[in-house]
Amino acid sequence: MKIGLVQPEVIPGDPQRNFEQVSGLCSRALAEGAELLLLPENCLSGALLGDVPGEGEFFAECEELERRLCKLAGNVPLKFGNAFVLDANGAHEWSGVPEPMPYVHGQVASFRKSLQDAAREHRRAVAYVNAVSAGNAGKSWRAFDGRGLLIAPSGDLVAELPAFEPAVRVVDSESAGRVEPKPETIADLHAAIALQTRTMIEVCGIRNVVVGASGGIDSSVVAALMAKIVPPERMLLVNMPSRHNSATTKGIARRLAENLGTWFAEIPIEPSVELTVAQFGSCELRRGGESRKLELTPALLENVQARDRGSRVLAAAAAAFGGVFTCNGNKAECTVGYATIMGDLSGFFAPIADLWKHEVYALGRFLNESVHGFEAIPREAFEIPPSAELSPAQAVEEGKGDPIVYPYHDFLFRWWTESEERPGPLATLEHYASKTLEKTIGAESGIVDRLFPDAASFAADLERWWTLFCGMGSAKRSFAPPLASVSPWAFGSERSESALRPFFPQKYVELKKSLLSRR
Amino acid sequence: MKIGLVQPEVIPGDPQRNFEQVSGLCSRALAEGAELLLLPENCLSGALLGDVPGEGEFFAECEELERRLCKLAGNVPLKFGNAFVLDANGAHEWSGVPEPMPYVHGQVASFRKSLQDAAREHRRAVAYVNAVSAGNAGKSWRAFDGRGLLIAPSGDLVAELPAFEPAVRVVDSESAGRVEPKPETIADLHAAIALQTRTMIEVCGIRNVVVGASGGIDSSVVAALMAKIVPPERMLLVNMPSRHNSATTKGIARRLAENLGTWFAEIPIEPSVELTVAQFGSCELRRGGESRKLELTPALLENVQARDRGSRVLAAAAAAFGGVFTCNGNKAECTVGYATIMGDLSGFFAPIADLWKHEVYALGRFLNESVHGFEAIPREAFEIPPSAELSPAQAVEEGKGDPIVYPYHDFLFRWWTESEERPGPLATLEHYASKTLEKTIGAESGIVDRLFPDAASFAADLERWWTLFCGMGSAKRSFAPPLASVSPWAFGSERSESALRPFFPQKYVELKKSLLSRR
Repeated sequence: MKIGLVQPEVIPGDPQRNFEQVSGLCSRALAEGAELLLLPENCLSGALLGDVPGEGEFFAECEELERRLCKLAGNVPLKFGNAFVLDANGAHEWSGVPEPMPYVHGQVASFRKSLQDAAREHRRAVAYVNAVSAGNAGKSWRAFDGRGLLIAPSGDLVAELPAFEPAVRVVDSESAGRVEPKPETIADLHAAIALQTRTMIEVCGIRNVVVGASGGIDSSVVAALMAKIVPPERMLLVNMPSRHNSATTKGIARRLAENLGTWFAEIPIEPSVELTVAQFGSCELRRGGESRKLELTPALLENVQARDRGSRVLAAAAAAFGGVFTCNGNKAECTVGYATIMGDLSGFFAPIADLWKHEVYALGRFLNESVHGFEAIPREAFEIPPSAELSPAQAVEEGKGDPIVYPYHDFLFRWWTESEERPGPLATLEHYASKTLEKTIGAESGIVDRLFPDAASFAADLERWWTLFCGMGSAKRSFAPPLASVSPWAFGSERSESALRPFFPQKYVELKKSLLSRR
Repeated sequence: MKIGLVQPEVIPGDPQRNFEQVSGLCSRALAEGAELLLLPENCLSGALLGDVPGEGEFFAECEELERRLCKLAGNVPLKFGNAFVLDANGAHEWSGVPEPMPYVHGQVASFRKSLQDAAREHRRAVAYVNAVSAGNAGKSWRAFDGRGLLIAPSGDLVAELPAFEPAVRVVDSESAGRVEPKPETIADLHAAIALQTRTMIEVCGIRNVVVGASGGIDSSVVAALMAKIVPPERMLLVNMPSRHNSATTKGIARRLAENLGTWFAEIPIEPSVELTVAQFGSCELRRGGESRKLELTPALLENVQARDRGSRVLAAAAAAFGGVFTCNGNKAECTVGYATIMGDLSGFFAPIADLWKHEVYALGRFLNESVHGFEAIPREAFEIPPSAELSPAQAVEEGKGDPIVYPYHDFLFRWWTESEERPGPLATLEHYASKTLEKTIGAESGIVDRLFPDAASFAADLERWWTLFCGMGSAKRSFAPPLASVSPWAFGSERSESALRPFFPQKYVELKKSLLSRR
C-alpha cells in the first residue's frame, strides 16, 4: 500500500493557518498516488500543552476544518494519530505509543529503537507521524521535531522523514527497502531551540529583538542564534558598561554586532546608578517622630546595576526599537538563582536556559562552524572566565569571575535536577564519602579533591548550593521568563516547583558529623 | 467513642517543626481521654502542591516522624487521612472524599453539605480533618482552613472546629448534640489571604516588607492587610510621585502610613525618568555606516515610569530595608494584563491578585471595620476613581482614571475566567444579541446599553479585552509574582496557560457581521 506520511509545520492555536499547510501537503501526497494519509493528531490545533481560552469554540472550529480535510481526501482514507499499526486491513492507531513525543536531546535513537522493537515483537509494520511544531504551557516550551518513521514488520527502518522541517513522503510499504537512521547531533539541539524561539516570536507577533550583549559567552550565543531567526536589521545589540566592565568584553560585544550585521549601541548604566545612590543617600524614612536612612551596600549595588540594565535600559530600548529583549541565562545559573530578578532574569524568552554551560560553549562552536560559517562569536568570548562583571572581585582581565565552578557544578546541578533518582544532600554526601561522586555526576576525575581540600569545605559548598537551589533559586525561577526546553527535565511550568524551606535530612547531619570528626 | 480531631497549623516542607505542633496537640487530646486520634494526611510534610527537591530523603524523614507519633499515641489508634467513616469497628479512611480541599471563597457550605448528605446516605458518622496550612505550586498558593467536622449518621453536625486556627477537640461520638454550622463570611476570605501571605513570609524567611503606596485602593488594602501580619516597625510604605500624581493620592498614602504606624518615604521618580529620556535622546544606534535614534514616545514613557517605580525604587528600597516588596495588582488587571512587567507587575507576592475590584473594596471595608477597628484606610481611597496616574488622561482630581470599567468588566472577566462553561467571544456576543449578558455575568441591569450605544462599540470592546486576555495578558501572567488564591479558578501555576494567538471563531465573525448590518 502506498502510504502518505504527512508532516506539516504548524503553529499552536491557529487552526485556519494550519489547515492551509496540512491541506497543501495532503494534496501533494494524493498527487503522488497515496492510498492512505497519516496525519499527526494535533496538526490543526497545533501542539497544545496548556489550556485554550474559550476552548469549546476553538475545538468546534478545529472539527469543522477536520471535516473539510476529509472531504479533500475523497475516497482515500485519512487518519489522525501519532503511531499506527499497519496490516492488511489498513492502519490502526496504536495505543502502545502515547501523545507525540517532544524532542529531548539525546533520546532520538532510543525512541526510534522502541518503535522498531515493538514492530518486531508484534510482527507488524509501524508508522509514526509527528508535526514540526513548538508548544508551550506558559513558561515551558517544547519542540516537536517531525522525523516521521515507517518501520517494516522485521523492525527495519524503511522511511525516515527529515527532522525539524515540514515534509510529505509517499512510501510503498511492500516494496520500500531498508534505510539508515539519521544520527542525532548538536544540529538537532540547535534546531530544537531555534524552532521554539521562532514559534514564540510568531505566536506573540514580535517584530524586532534586542539582546543585552555583555561580551560573555551566554549573550554572544543568544545573539548569534537570534541573528538567524530575525533579520539582522531588525536586531539591536546593547552593551551596558559600568566601571567594572573590561575593555575586553566591551570589544567582544561590539565585534559580535559587526559580525552579525545587527544594530549596536553602548548605553552606560553609571549615571543612573549614581543617581539612585544619591537619591537614596538623601532620602529619610519617617515614622512618628523617628527617622532613619536606607543604605545601599556594595552587595545591594550589584543588584541595582543588574536591574538598571534589565528594567531601565533593555526594557525601554526594546520598546523604542519596536520589540522585546532576550534573557540570556544558562541552566546552571537558573538552578541556583545566580541572577537578579528584574535584572538579568528578565526578558521575553530564554533560549539557552535549559543548557548547561558546557552545552552553551558547544552550541557556540556549532553556530560559528556550521550556521554562520565563520567566527561570528569572537574567539575571546570562549576564552575569558565566565563573569557577571559586577564588582572588582569579578575582573575578567585578572582571570576572576563567577562563584559557580562550571566543570564541577554544571554536572552536580545536572544530577540534582535531571536524574531520575532525584537525589538530595544525603545522597550527594554519601557519594562523596565513597568517592563515587565524579563518576555518578559525570564530572572529570579528580576535580572534587582538587576543589575541596577536606570534607568540611565539600559540605559547605554542597550546603550553599543546595540551599540556593531549593530556596532562593526556586523563588527566583517563579519570576523567570519562558524558556526553550531540550532536556528530560527543564525548569519552567512543566516542573511544578514549590517554595519550601530548604531541607537537610537528619541522616545528612549525622553523616556530615561523622565525616568531619574523621580527620 | 471519644474521638480526637487534631487540627494543627503546619508549614510546608518543615517536618521537624510540624512534628512538634502535631505531637503537642495529640498529647492534649490524649490527656482529654481520646480513644482515637484523627490527623490530617499531610500534617507532617505540610501541604505539598508541587515537587519536593530530593523527595526520597524528605519522605523518609516524614515516615520516621510518623513512627515517633504512633509511639507517642501508645495503645490509642492514630489515623492519618482526611475523611473517615466511623462505625463500630473504628474509623476507616473514606475514599469518597479526595485530597484535603483548599479553601474556595463561597464554597464552605456546599462542601459541608456534601459530607452531611453522604453521612445520611450511608447511615454512618463521618469525620473530616484538615490542617491549617498554606501550600504552593510555585506561583499559586492555596489556603487550607482547618474547620474539622464530625457528622452523625443522621447528617447532623455534631462538631465543627474553628476555621484558620490550630485546634484540637475530643468529641464523644455517641453523646454529642447537634451544633449550628458557622456561616462563611468575608472574615474567611480575609483569613485565607492572610494565612497564605504569612506562610509565604515564613517559608521564605522574610523579615521586612515594603509596599509601594500610590494612594489608590489596591495598594492601601495590601498595606492594611500586611500591617497585621508584619509588625508596623518592620514595614515601609513608599510613595513614588511623578508630575501626574495628585495631591489627593499623595496625601492618602502619607495618612495611611500614619494610621498603620509604618515607616514612610516619598521617593520621586521624576529625576530618574528625565535621565533616561536624556540618555536615550543622545544615544545613537549604529549599523555599518548607518545610524538611527531610539524614540521614547509618551506611551512608552508610561511604562518607563512604572518600571522606575518597581525595579529601581521599590526593589532597591526593599533590599536596603532588609526585605521584599508586595505586588498590589487585582484580578481584573491580571486578566487583561493592565500592568507593566518589571513595573507594577513585580514584587515577591500578590495578596489580592485573585480578588476582583469589587472584592478589593469589600476587603478594604472589612479591614477598616473589623481588623483595624477604625478608618485606617482613608475614606478617599474608596471614593477616587481607580487610576494608574500615568498620564494627564488619568487625572483623578478631574474624575478620570483607568480604561477598565469595573462595574461591567469585573463581571465579564470573572465569567470568562471562572465559569465552568469556559465561554469565548462567540458566547459573549450571543448573550449580547439575546440581551442575557448582564444576568449571565452577574453585572447590574442596564449597564451594557449604558456603556455601548450600538453593537459595533460592544464588539470593539469585547475584541479589545479578549485579545488582551488571551494574548498580552497571558504572556504578562507568566511574569507575575506568586499569588494568594481564593477563587475556583485563580491565575498562577495552577492554571496552565499557553501563549497562543488570540482566537476568534468563524461563527463569531459571522454573527458580528449580521448584528452590525441590522441597524
